[in-house]
Amino acid sequence: MKIALLGYGTVGRGVDGIIRSRVPGVEVARILELPDRLTDDRMTSDCACILSDPSIELVVECMGGIEPAHTYIAQALAAGKHVVTSNKAVVAAYFGEFASLADEHGVSFLIEASVGGGIPWIASIEKVRRIDEVRSFSGIMNGTTNYIIDSMRRDELDFDVALGRAQELGYAERDPSADIDGIDVANKTIISACVAFDVDCVRDLPVTGIRTLAKADLEFFAARGLTVKLFGRGMSKDGCYAVAVEPVAIPLLSLEAAVPSNFNLVSLEGFTVGPLKFYGQGAGSLPTGNAVVQDVIDVAHGRIQRYDFSRGLKYDPSLLTGDYVIRSSVAPSHSEGWAPGVWRLRSLTPPQARQIYEKVLQEDASAFMAALPQEG
Amino acid sequence: MKIALLGYGTVGRGVDGIIRSRVPGVEVARILELPDRLTDDRMTSDCACILSDPSIELVVECMGGIEPAHTYIAQALAAGKHVVTSNKAVVAAYFGEFASLADEHGVSFLIEASVGGGIPWIASIEKVRRIDEVRSFSGIMNGTTNYIIDSMRRDELDFDVALGRAQELGYAERDPSADIDGIDVANKTIISACVAFDVDCVRDLPVTGIRTLAKADLEFFAARGLTVKLFGRGMSKDGCYAVAVEPVAIPLLSLEAAVPSNFNLVSLEGFTVGPLKFYGQGAGSLPTGNAVVQDVIDVAHGRIQRYDFSRGLKYDPSLLTGDYVIRSSVAPSHSEGWAPGVWRLRSLTPPQARQIYEKVLQEDASAFMAALPQEG
Repeated sequence: MKIALLGYGTVGRGVDGIIRSRVPGVEVARILELPDRLTDDRMTSDCACILSDPSIELVVECMGGIEPAHTYIAQALAAGKHVVTSNKAVVAAYFGEFASLADEHGVSFLIEASVGGGIPWIASIEKVRRIDEVRSFSGIMNGTTNYIIDSMRRDELDFDVALGRAQELGYAERDPSADIDGIDVANKTIISACVAFDVDCVRDLPVTGIRTLAKADLEFFAARGLTVKLFGRGMSKDGCYAVAVEPVAIPLLSLEAAVPSNFNLVSLEGFTVGPLKFYGQGAGSLPTGNAVVQDVIDVAHGRIQRYDFSRGLKYDPSLLTGDYVIRSSVAPSHSEGWAPGVWRLRSLTPPQARQIYEKVLQEDASAFMAALPQEG
Repeated sequence: MKIALLGYGTVGRGVDGIIRSRVPGVEVARILELPDRLTDDRMTSDCACILSDPSIELVVECMGGIEPAHTYIAQALAAGKHVVTSNKAVVAAYFGEFASLADEHGVSFLIEASVGGGIPWIASIEKVRRIDEVRSFSGIMNGTTNYIIDSMRRDELDFDVALGRAQELGYAERDPSADIDGIDVANKTIISACVAFDVDCVRDLPVTGIRTLAKADLEFFAARGLTVKLFGRGMSKDGCYAVAVEPVAIPLLSLEAAVPSNFNLVSLEGFTVGPLKFYGQGAGSLPTGNAVVQDVIDVAHGRIQRYDFSRGLKYDPSLLTGDYVIRSSVAPSHSEGWAPGVWRLRSLTPPQARQIYEKVLQEDASAFMAALPQEG
């Protein structure tokens, strides 16, 4: 089977290397690259010439970003080519459109690498759903923020020092906003919800990151047997679903608390299988390349993957109602004092909590908020 | 597709219920049961009548034990029926024979439920191996012993009290030997090695359980930032492989240390995908039934699963060479004192350590041994 790569960055090079050395029967025949980087005779800077080539059966999109990735994926599907992508931003934004196009043109649209790097997360959700409903999912979906929190806790670093280390190690971008403000996790949460609940998930979910997390916050929680991780979460019940991205206070002795460095840990709960958790490298050339290649092999083996969002689940954020804690020099509305400068807010939906937190931030830009464990 | 269940205990009933409620297109048409328990008109106590029925395409063996399970599985494969089994003892004992028979008769032999209950462990090893070699695997493969160790540590119980609780909860058998002496883990380790390394794994691997684990041992390790879990382990390198079952001292802050109650956590390390870890219920009617049904659905979808052990890896236990600790009133050979009554032994293979430990046990039946983390 001949395939094309759109993009030849970290992931594209990983995919090319893995396929060359380990996947007989699949050939990377064309590569889309910038005009000044055409170092290989498979490369072209003209995507039309790849999309109009009938010998290319599958296109791997690993350019990142929204455009032109969105246009190229849509064109490839419309041209009757299977598409495999690692680009969470474009999948989160256009999953419904891509799913319809794939369905219409009888091809597969595969997205394993868009969430959790080398962890077989999307495939595991799909497999569980052959038998079970997925009640809920949650987890650490961003390695950069896990690295920052883990360094702050284990090495007692301040946020800025931990972020600087993450940048030195290449775990964080020079502009770390997408990671530390939860935008990357929001994309992965949307994609996970689409797959877990068969719904074209809302895009305007409540998103809170860890930009204001302080060493003192971790100490406050540790004294109470807790620590904090940035979670993407989803829940479905009685024809409704909810999603949220926010720091969550979790028991120090939990599996999630033990996740080190830049690793990911994602969990789901099925009715018959119970809780399942998956741990691994959530990013990187080889783990993410591995996930892309698994999707490519599935297509080569004749697997058809379609998504159908016509089930019509309703968005109801009250499914994720719980207590919150805000550390701030000003008292949030509806709060009770917990400790000096720390406030507890009972029984809020994630959007309600987000709204209160935004008001607090206007007066105290350093305020931090986390959801508390459901059991109180 | 019509299938038959051999056995209608915990797992068989779980499989029957899941298939009836959630798997259209598959029918449990026959069930093998004891003559005095034929409560359902699908039931018979005559296995020949199931195996000679040409309408039965697949047989689920969930009787447990070696005979007659071994004979029935071999007969079913020879009769051209796919076989799915949750019976780790019989798979560990006869994997090579079953694999050859399946190959010869063009049918699938599927064993997901034999290790890790509802965790997609076998399928994940197989999937990783489409691209990668598996360098090593390890993990907590027995929920009963994890429950015992976890209760001893979190609730500061003595071994016997924790075992009694496990028995009350139905996690441990009245005769708990298979669990606490590591025999169950040995079976799962053999099966995992067969799948991970493509080898008809040795049966006489070194096996040490947790029968002599004392609260004081956990305190000794905790003071050094460690705790103990019972691990099955395998490693492959340069045409050789090694396997062992023994308590391993691991960092208190590790994921493995955080595994609660009767859960399992199994890990593998691939060359391109890096470390992957999988967590879930390692036993129980619904999780194990779920794994069986996943295999049944795979067959219904046309998946062919074969095993070929002709690669000829050599057994070399020195791959797992490391340091050990023995707590005993007598000094083991080749040991140095670490603390009063605690001895450290450097650079031993698991069989060497086992041999020394057995000698110690002759003089001090309460002695406890654990492997130390590889990094020292």
